[in-house]
Amino acid sequence: MIRTHDAGALRAEHADETVVLAGWVARRRDHGGVVFLDLREASGVVQVVVREDDLAHDLRAEYCLKVTGKVRIRPEGNENPEIATGAVEVVADEIEVLSEAAPLPFPLDGSQEISEEARLRYRYLDIRRPERAGALRTRSTATYAVHDVMREHGFVNIETPNLTRSTPEGARDFLVPVRLQPGHWYALPQSPQLFKQLLMVGGMERYYQIARCFRDEDFRADRQPEFTQIDIEMSFVDQDDVIQVGEELVARLWSEVLGYEVPLPLPRMPYFEAMDRFGSDKPDLRFGQELTELTEYFAETPFRVFQAPYVGGVVMPGGATQTRKELDGWQDWAKARGAKGLAYVLVQEDGTLGGPVAKNLAEEERAGLVGVVGAKPGDAVFFAAGERKASQELLGAARLEIGRRLGLIDESQWSFLWIVDAPMFEEDGEGGWTSVHHPFTGPKPEWADTFHTDPGNALAYAYDMVCNGSEIGGGSIRIHRGEVQQRVFDVLGISKAEAESKFGFLLEAFKFGPPPHGGIAFGWDRIIALLTESESIRDVIAFPKTASGGDPLTGAPTPITVFQRREAGIDADPETGKEKAEAEPAE
Amino acid sequence: MIRTHDAGALRAEHADETVVLAGWVARRRDHGGVVFLDLREASGVVQVVVREDDLAHDLRAEYCLKVTGKVRIRPEGNENPEIATGAVEVVADEIEVLSEAAPLPFPLDGSQEISEEARLRYRYLDIRRPERAGALRTRSTATYAVHDVMREHGFVNIETPNLTRSTPEGARDFLVPVRLQPGHWYALPQSPQLFKQLLMVGGMERYYQIARCFRDEDFRADRQPEFTQIDIEMSFVDQDDVIQVGEELVARLWSEVLGYEVPLPLPRMPYFEAMDRFGSDKPDLRFGQELTELTEYFAETPFRVFQAPYVGGVVMPGGATQTRKELDGWQDWAKARGAKGLAYVLVQEDGTLGGPVAKNLAEEERAGLVGVVGAKPGDAVFFAAGERKASQELLGAARLEIGRRLGLIDESQWSFLWIVDAPMFEEDGEGGWTSVHHPFTGPKPEWADTFHTDPGNALAYAYDMVCNGSEIGGGSIRIHRGEVQQRVFDVLGISKAEAESKFGFLLEAFKFGPPPHGGIAFGWDRIIALLTESESIRDVIAFPKTASGGDPLTGAPTPITVFQRREAGIDADPETGKEKAEAEPAE
Repeated sequence: MIRTHDAGALRAEHADETVVLAGWVARRRDHGGVVFLDLREASGVVQVVVREDDLAHDLRAEYCLKVTGKVRIRPEGNENPEIATGAVEVVADEIEVLSEAAPLPFPLDGSQEISEEARLRYRYLDIRRPERAGALRTRSTATYAVHDVMREHGFVNIETPNLTRSTPEGARDFLVPVRLQPGHWYALPQSPQLFKQLLMVGGMERYYQIARCFRDEDFRADRQPEFTQIDIEMSFVDQDDVIQVGEELVARLWSEVLGYEVPLPLPRMPYFEAMDRFGSDKPDLRFGQELTELTEYFAETPFRVFQAPYVGGVVMPGGATQTRKELDGWQDWAKARGAKGLAYVLVQEDGTLGGPVAKNLAEEERAGLVGVVGAKPGDAVFFAAGERKASQELLGAARLEIGRRLGLIDESQWSFLWIVDAPMFEEDGEGGWTSVHHPFTGPKPEWADTFHTDPGNALAYAYDMVCNGSEIGGGSIRIHRGEVQQRVFDVLGISKAEAESKFGFLLEAFKFGPPPHGGIAFGWDRIIALLTESESIRDVIAFPKTASGGDPLTGAPTPITVFQRREAGIDADPETGKEKAEAEPAE
Repeated sequence: MIRTHDAGALRAEHADETVVLAGWVARRRDHGGVVFLDLREASGVVQVVVREDDLAHDLRAEYCLKVTGKVRIRPEGNENPEIATGAVEVVADEIEVLSEAAPLPFPLDGSQEISEEARLRYRYLDIRRPERAGALRTRSTATYAVHDVMREHGFVNIETPNLTRSTPEGARDFLVPVRLQPGHWYALPQSPQLFKQLLMVGGMERYYQIARCFRDEDFRADRQPEFTQIDIEMSFVDQDDVIQVGEELVARLWSEVLGYEVPLPLPRMPYFEAMDRFGSDKPDLRFGQELTELTEYFAETPFRVFQAPYVGGVVMPGGATQTRKELDGWQDWAKARGAKGLAYVLVQEDGTLGGPVAKNLAEEERAGLVGVVGAKPGDAVFFAAGERKASQELLGAARLEIGRRLGLIDESQWSFLWIVDAPMFEEDGEGGWTSVHHPFTGPKPEWADTFHTDPGNALAYAYDMVCNGSEIGGGSIRIHRGEVQQRVFDVLGISKAEAESKFGFLLEAFKFGPPPHGGIAFGWDRIIALLTESESIRDVIAFPKTASGGDPLTGAPTPITVFQRREAGIDADPETGKEKAEAEPAE
């Protein structure tokens, strides 16, 4: 090692020791004849005192230095209690410039807003900033903890392929042409779902992997084309067994990273209760403002809008004093979410109801409303009416927005829960059914025999873990009997031929004594973002992509050459392996 | 959990306990009125005794069962000391068939040769076999040990992207079309080399990752299109620091998996010494038969073949008694390796030399030869003459073949060493130079100023770890100064434009205070194959590919649909993002 000591570990007890340090110039201050450098490296920062000479003159920000010098106690009054090394400084005897730094594209020590494009283009500078480096180091600490927990529970770490065949998980696959089989393509896995089930058929019993997954989705705010999940599968288990492992994993992470002890067991809430009370399948329980169902209440209403299969409301404390502009803003907000608008009443200080909806209601409806929804004078009540799920989701989103605007959310709190008893199927809008989870999710035991006759009410043996309103994990007990799987396919309208072509190999495997099994997958990037209080998962990924899937640092993706195209067999006929004569490859 | 006990953990002290087990029927033996089942699961095997009734009659191999019964000590004389549970058996009260098994495509309990195609197609059955499952479990144990060692040394586990830009490492890249940027492609990384160097520029100082790598090479016996490496990089280090971490890692693996203590520090052998003595840059030191250089000895030889820049020999003990056919076989062997043949002399019992070469030698050459090469009566001596490296490699291969044929290799021994001081460059056969390692490998300090003026002799600051004749790891101290990197590119004939287009972002990063750094990568599949005494890395990969890159289990790769092709933008013009009109996509 070039250095003898870690700069960030120097303390008063090192006084008078000669040390060799190596790190970067984080800051420089000139004080008549003496230059003070903050030397930064992985372990922290220490102040280096350099006599002002030609060399010191040249030491600019982010130069990489080797410093030989003597540790001394700082003169009284000059201590810096803000840093761990603040009691000492190192008086440089000799400084070697290991490498110079060009003027920086952006300062690393300030709190200025820097464009994400710039931060990603110079990611190696961005991650020199302590908060960014800290997030990556925390991710590593958390990763070690995952391995510990899984080892203690006897899990086998197994790598599954990244070059494989399409998996039927709803999103698009990334494709990879195969030069040795021209015209044929691998797909990158959307998850190791099928492989982990095959490992259970193979008798591995307890599998986990920190798995890279690939989904070619349209980029939204916080999506990445590749992401990481903690992937777990177990044999001979019931729902409680998987839930227990999941809880211990999360508790260990929060304990080791944040020193926060998650109270176990976590509460479990049925899916329909979460929808009824919070309008969400990932409710944020850090504040109240629960929804009130008003379908019964408005059963006889003269107001046409409320003559709907579902009517519900949510209270905004103090909302009656909003300006006309603010109230209009809510309408825009609702329309941006695809709703027609957001009906509301304003509870005046005298208890009467204002706003455009009130006059459409029957006298007795007006009279009892405040009591039913639990509003107080000065509050606003927002309503949604229509199809149950969509209306509840609109109110749930309004609830969150109310919580944000009014600062109702206790940011210091951690709210974990399981959502259980979700429906197996939902209507696909075209008269058929789709899986709420995925088609390998088993029915709850009491629905095992009948789910296919009443798909709208059948419950899945599935569980999602929610933290502060984010879904951080989800899993299920799988189907392991071919006969049950076949009935699911029938409900989903998947023909035998289609099932055979998409995952025939899994169905084939299930002919050979498959064990009962289930599992879970945790969204690792999201968990690390929560643990590091990062706004975006991009902050906890070393080299993330932008919203269009690009990497400003490497310039990926790029066009390819005619030669690469030909060699990869991209335009080859899969039957003959020969290139189609007409295909004119792009350069 | 369905089971109350692990079947493989049952011992005499469990006698009379009622247990619930879950596992597979590994074997069944019928004994007048009673059926004995070997019930196999992750923890091992136990014997289950079932009264012969209708149920027992149906229990075939690989049925998945839940067995409720009572543990009892086996009747005297019936103990089976070969299995850990051999003192007991479980008398079944109740058996539930969790799932049935169709007749197996191949037996799981025998030692029959089964085609690899069949084993991969039914991989989930193949890995039920204890030796195959054991290899995967050992891989997991070893993986845990890697995380331990790296954590103890303060390494940060960082994930690098799999969707990225071409890296210039000699092999072909796998390509991935990018739907959101039609006509543009990601490349899958051949290794995280550039990213780990960027992480060093970013100040992470100690990085590691168990990294998936992708290389589109022509498949050879033991290659996979995706493979795994333990990838390590460190800042502010010298060669000795990286070597020390590498040695501790390997020592821990061999200790934890095999209980074998690797003696540290490992010996280091300069590259040229390895070539001179063993004809290999990954010498197997478990046996002797070192090469003898005879260039000087034959300096004045009348034999035209030996008038060469290099002549060397290797002794085959007892080789003089080989039949004509065996000796001809060696010629075929050499030709298969691309040589013209393999000259030899046979040392007769009376010390005279036989074979076609002997008569071409001068009298005094014949007289002294046996002494110079250390042969004894009855031995054969093989020769190679010509270009130094190719001739040494031929003799090195002959040495290995001799070792194998004569059983000279002590298979119980572990031979580790480092190969150091390899050349930086080698001639590319077209009058230029190529990198022996990769173009970011630094020169040894004493060659830092002069490597570009004498590229043929310059030594790299690189180190390869060899175990039993396999290279299991390799790395180097990297170049961190742009000026040095530029001189390397000049030697390699890489133009500024080419360097800029291929890895301009790395050169750009090196403008901002890059630290001195170096690292190493270990071939994880190969290491696990050694630790498990597996013949092929395919045996230690859960779902490997065949030689043509196919997966008989999933059927990957497959043709893609016109729709997928269009959607992925495969035929789009990268400039306009629009599909070329003429391009007629393959279905």
